[in-house]
Amino acid sequence: MKDPIEQWVRPEIRALDSYPVPDAVGLLKLDAMENPYTWPDELRQAWLERLAGVDVNRYPDPQAQALKQRLRATMGIPAEAGLILGNGSDELIQMLAMTVASPTRTLLSVEPGFVMYRMIASFCGMRYLGVDLEANDFGLPLDALLAAIEQQQPPLIFLAYPNNPTGNLFREEALLRVIEAAPGLVVIDEAYTPFTDHSFLPRLGEHANLLVMRTVSKMGLAGLRLGYLAGPSPWLDQVEKLRLPYNINVLTQLSADFALQHLALFNQQTEQIRADRERLFAALKEIPGIRPYPSQANFILLRLTRRDAPAVFEGLKQAGILVKNLHGAHPLLAQCLRITVGTAQENAALLQALRELS
Amino acid sequence: MKDPIEQWVRPEIRALDSYPVPDAVGLLKLDAMENPYTWPDELRQAWLERLAGVDVNRYPDPQAQALKQRLRATMGIPAEAGLILGNGSDELIQMLAMTVASPTRTLLSVEPGFVMYRMIASFCGMRYLGVDLEANDFGLPLDALLAAIEQQQPPLIFLAYPNNPTGNLFREEALLRVIEAAPGLVVIDEAYTPFTDHSFLPRLGEHANLLVMRTVSKMGLAGLRLGYLAGPSPWLDQVEKLRLPYNINVLTQLSADFALQHLALFNQQTEQIRADRERLFAALKEIPGIRPYPSQANFILLRLTRRDAPAVFEGLKQAGILVKNLHGAHPLLAQCLRITVGTAQENAALLQALRELS
Repeated sequence: MKDPIEQWVRPEIRALDSYPVPDAVGLLKLDAMENPYTWPDELRQAWLERLAGVDVNRYPDPQAQALKQRLRATMGIPAEAGLILGNGSDELIQMLAMTVASPTRTLLSVEPGFVMYRMIASFCGMRYLGVDLEANDFGLPLDALLAAIEQQQPPLIFLAYPNNPTGNLFREEALLRVIEAAPGLVVIDEAYTPFTDHSFLPRLGEHANLLVMRTVSKMGLAGLRLGYLAGPSPWLDQVEKLRLPYNINVLTQLSADFALQHLALFNQQTEQIRADRERLFAALKEIPGIRPYPSQANFILLRLTRRDAPAVFEGLKQAGILVKNLHGAHPLLAQCLRITVGTAQENAALLQALRELS
Repeated sequence: MKDPIEQWVRPEIRALDSYPVPDAVGLLKLDAMENPYTWPDELRQAWLERLAGVDVNRYPDPQAQALKQRLRATMGIPAEAGLILGNGSDELIQMLAMTVASPTRTLLSVEPGFVMYRMIASFCGMRYLGVDLEANDFGLPLDALLAAIEQQQPPLIFLAYPNNPTGNLFREEALLRVIEAAPGLVVIDEAYTPFTDHSFLPRLGEHANLLVMRTVSKMGLAGLRLGYLAGPSPWLDQVEKLRLPYNINVLTQLSADFALQHLALFNQQTEQIRADRERLFAALKEIPGIRPYPSQANFILLRLTRRDAPAVFEGLKQAGILVKNLHGAHPLLAQCLRITVGTAQENAALLQALRELS
């Protein structure tokens, strides 16, 4: 008799490894692009008072209407745009892929990029093509991308703005060329939007195939797992059909709504992170053997020019600091580490450790 | 030029309607199988004290280890069984379907049953077959089911125990025959487990293809959206690869863990609901023109024998009571309504309204 797992589990799933998340217990976490600032006591008290009124025995509002209105108001989402919420961007990527999936269709992105685009294409039974970024500056390889669009006719393209793990913004004109050339949807993934002044959100009305995806994770709400997707209603009406009813639970709805009422505080925190990013970048540049790449996000990609990145990664871990080792993830990331911008104190600890290790 | 939505959105998605959730504002909610009891103040205070220590700026534990241990301990999940968490059972059904999906493969269940089995099969690009239950008592149509298994060779079978929306338990021996005959997975969906003494959880070690799926929704935590799936590790290791990392947010992890530490209270509430279900059933039987079906869940299916179910549904709504109208959902449900067991007072209000309307 055939092994039932071999018989039934799709071969592309059998071939996958699980998404690895390293154990961070006791370490200074500079690996996951978290906002390092916790909530002031006063805010926490006000939040708990709101939570005190929640009845968890009842299902959440399946449309999350209050939260969606708050997002529209605070994030400047055009009134005529559709809006869908997900448990993190991940769930939104999955809904989008499921909407158009077929084994002969391609989800197109760039590499190195956010790993979940490729993973979720696999989950949903689509092909995946990642076009390599420019080697010198991780810029958008426009000609190669246009050629891939022409050849593959992808129904779905994801481009992160700024890009993860490289931290740079692609050229706006190049992205517009992609949007115009694409036969299907182009999703601009603005997960790191709190750390840049540039956004495609104001352009939502201008292109019938443009969607903008964001998350509240990086502004300081990673624990809530809330992503949102805005774009033309005719498309989002279709994607919405695939949303599992009640996908956003009652605590997330209330807590995100509450936090967005206090956006000024989070803006203050992310402004601080932006300023500290510039200081960290300048300090990294001064360390012999380290080449940091300019970033518009809350992390900095750096390349080690004299030591082995995996060894430095391990050395940092020994020193109690967890960063992301990207060596081996893609040829363009050889000897690279990615470092989340932390508090001034955390950044100082990192710099000191790097000075000894690099 | 072709309409891009027609060109790219999968035809089975275009053909779908969104899952309809009725507006319940201001109504007595007896439509959604919610536990009607809120938390005592003391419990609420203790919960808020736990939440006060949460830092929502950090990602949740991707493995939700504390919550999983708590579930194992409180729900009697065998130590050797695998365990996966989802945002409600819905996300687990979707992971399971994605694991084995192909356009030529069938997800098998019974009808009338939980509508998400069929919906999610569509989402994931699988066929769906629902074998009709026995007309007289909604029993499991064993011969028809075995014939469908023989013919379709389904990789995935869902059977709810008790069944929704009929409320009955299928015969244990018949389910065992299905488990033995199935070439792939059989998922026993025990969403309503707090309201019956019967379960397949103790049988998990006995069958290599048996999974048990549950949710904390009906015990009184519908707002949290937490489902769990237990079964043989070799299977669940594959399904786990499709789980989106960090899918269970930090507030759900903490709140469910907290609630399960106070399981005695929820057991007391569900015991009360069970006792009230019997009283409600007896009272419904006394109303001319109503035929209630015996239930092992926290709802009762009833058939109107003299009036039109949609008219009675509307009459109840006029009287401020929302129930579920099932007339039109399936031929076996002609003139049927489904009523969630509420508090004694809510049940009395329902009975009074039904006496006037039926």
